Amino acid sequence: MSEIAINSERLWQSLADMARIGATKLGGSKRLALTDEDRAGRDLFVSWARAAGCGITIDEMGNIFARREGSRPEAEPVMAGSHLDTQPTGGRFDGVFGVLAGLEVLRTLADHKLTTARPFEVAVWTNEEGSRFQPAMMGSAVFAGAMPLEEALGATDQTGATAGAELARIQYKGEAPCRPRPLHAYLEAHIEQGPVLEAEELTIGVVTGIQGIKWFKATLEGINAHAGTTPMEVRRDPLVGAARIVEALDSMTRAFRPDAVATVGMFSVSPGSINVINQEVNFSVDLRCPEEAALLELEKEFRAACDEITKGMGLRWKLEEIWYSPPSLFAPQVVDKVEAAARALGLSARRMVSGAGHDAKHLADLCPAGMIFIPCENGISHNELENVQPEHVAAGANVLLRTVLELAES
Amino acid sequence: MSEIAINSERLWQSLADMARIGATKLGGSKRLALTDEDRAGRDLFVSWARAAGCGITIDEMGNIFARREGSRPEAEPVMAGSHLDTQPTGGRFDGVFGVLAGLEVLRTLADHKLTTARPFEVAVWTNEEGSRFQPAMMGSAVFAGAMPLEEALGATDQTGATAGAELARIQYKGEAPCRPRPLHAYLEAHIEQGPVLEAEELTIGVVTGIQGIKWFKATLEGINAHAGTTPMEVRRDPLVGAARIVEALDSMTRAFRPDAVATVGMFSVSPGSINVINQEVNFSVDLRCPEEAALLELEKEFRAACDEITKGMGLRWKLEEIWYSPPSLFAPQVVDKVEAAARALGLSARRMVSGAGHDAKHLADLCPAGMIFIPCENGISHNELENVQPEHVAAGANVLLRTVLELAES
Repeated sequence: MSEIAINSERLWQSLADMARIGATKLGGSKRLALTDEDRAGRDLFVSWARAAGCGITIDEMGNIFARREGSRPEAEPVMAGSHLDTQPTGGRFDGVFGVLAGLEVLRTLADHKLTTARPFEVAVWTNEEGSRFQPAMMGSAVFAGAMPLEEALGATDQTGATAGAELARIQYKGEAPCRPRPLHAYLEAHIEQGPVLEAEELTIGVVTGIQGIKWFKATLEGINAHAGTTPMEVRRDPLVGAARIVEALDSMTRAFRPDAVATVGMFSVSPGSINVINQEVNFSVDLRCPEEAALLELEKEFRAACDEITKGMGLRWKLEEIWYSPPSLFAPQVVDKVEAAARALGLSARRMVSGAGHDAKHLADLCPAGMIFIPCENGISHNELENVQPEHVAAGANVLLRTVLELAES
Repeated sequence: MSEIAINSERLWQSLADMARIGATKLGGSKRLALTDEDRAGRDLFVSWARAAGCGITIDEMGNIFARREGSRPEAEPVMAGSHLDTQPTGGRFDGVFGVLAGLEVLRTLADHKLTTARPFEVAVWTNEEGSRFQPAMMGSAVFAGAMPLEEALGATDQTGATAGAELARIQYKGEAPCRPRPLHAYLEAHIEQGPVLEAEELTIGVVTGIQGIKWFKATLEGINAHAGTTPMEVRRDPLVGAARIVEALDSMTRAFRPDAVATVGMFSVSPGSINVINQEVNFSVDLRCPEEAALLELEKEFRAACDEITKGMGLRWKLEEIWYSPPSLFAPQVVDKVEAAARALGLSARRMVSGAGHDAKHLADLCPAGMIFIPCENGISHNELENVQPEHVAAGANVLLRTVLELAES
């Protein structure tokens, strides 16, 4: 059984077929959650899964489960999954690779008429991206009991449409309850979305967990004044203060530890006029670290720097935490099996922590979980230019197949 | 003749009456150029000037001249002036003080039935603020030959309305040609719009010139990437580069010379998403210095810093000059007369350079010119909270009166 392999051409072709739904000019895909394009992508997946002999279940959140029965149908299933929705100018692989790698495992089992001991399911989670409806990872959050169903269905997009109404409109509001159920293990194959594997010329990332993430909204207030008539020494310029804080955050994070990252992504000034010293600056801060204690320590250092920098400048500052997702550690027995599968297949691999959030984060609260990363070109993701090598796609799917087979027999 | 004084209560009352036109909630005024409020302000000025016995001339740019004849009507007149238009949330004194101080001189001459040797005119310049129609100082620019009439009249506001059409609509498109004509001297009384006089507890600023101003549009380009998956050491974050540049500009300007100022007012990032390292940062740079050679030296230092900072960061930068107004020096004979008048009146005074642009800048290219500053509260201007002390208003108007009388006899 360990000698079977996935059909890499079929998988590559399926990725291309899916990418045509919502194809963008620059070669990416636009399938925002619960749009007509999302529906078309779901329909295609369902038709492929049925053709591979699977039963389809759709739950109240629109999560889709394609199930291949095991020889012990009552046993807790092994599940693989990811998402088919994309960013507005998204790529062809983020999420889709994980779903179609799972489908390719289903197809390969069917090709070889193999029946695993445990049932095997492939999940398509609703609204992972969070672009149209917030928060991200909505379907898996409700499934794992991390978010009430009503709250998720009540989320609105920019036009005021609710996720619940849109789910019904595209006919993916299913009957199955969306709530935790026993799973033997969960696996998610995904592109790395970062540059590490490519830079180190490795094929497989054995993901040991997901970084903790804290988001903050920072505000600096000074005194707006005339740019021409206000001498430098009496200014209270919040932009100069913010500049020092951005620089301090960057340098303290580099010095902190190699796996910590900090980013200021949103940044705005007010009044923002060419000849006026600003009154206020607002910016976001995204802090990530694989260990909770370290993340909290970095936050503490950052707050101290804000205090120190602004003190001498006559500026007021505020740092409001708007989101915290604690670090997740994946189950060692799953991580070990992923690593062993890569090694058995002769693939180069390293252990790594995921810098991005994934549906696997919620599943890890339900059952032993793990992830398999493959390199992506220049680390570019959430972008139409997202690209991967066919041999890495095949390698990742084969690691998934082998790990599923291991887990489904245990 | 040197013992006459202006009527400070009448002047204060006129300032209050004018402020009621376009009054804002927080005590400021909104009279954008060539709106109905501007028209009402002009009408009020014209009615007051006529009541003081003046002849009114309106030119093709809508500049208004209220003239009190001299005993030598053929002599080149002495002129005082400023503007009645305001910023969208402007104050009650910026511009208005200069116009109404000139009017108060006219009224005082009428009260005392005094006839100066030279004619004396008070000018109201069209669109000094440049809020609705660009550029600022439009009326005085055309009058001084610094801008073609057609170009000024063709300027459009955000709705597409032209200055020419709006001028006709408010019935202030006059017959008199708007072009340079011989003037003996020009004086402009104005609030300082900065904190220096107040901080030094002085009453009169004897303005020796107007700073040179350079405006730039700066662009920094990096590589946008995922905030969670991109290690610090591979990032090319243009916001971190911009932060270092803003900080460098601030510190180099402080060290450069005490009368240089530098401001970053506009600042925007792209794509500006909380979990994305930005691709591009755009910001404005406003550099000012009273001496041209020093201003150019500061610019050179700044460009070198941009180069140095970005070199190690893998960022591309561009600095595009979008406006340059060279420094102006006022005529020593006018500056000396303003200073002598303040001294004769027993008022504390200092020489200073104007950090802001004024209509006097264009007039200085036509004739000997000078300005008289009075303190404003906390240096606040272009703001509804703009405030001045009544005794400073009276003092400034008396310095204007005395200087006009000196110049009109010479």
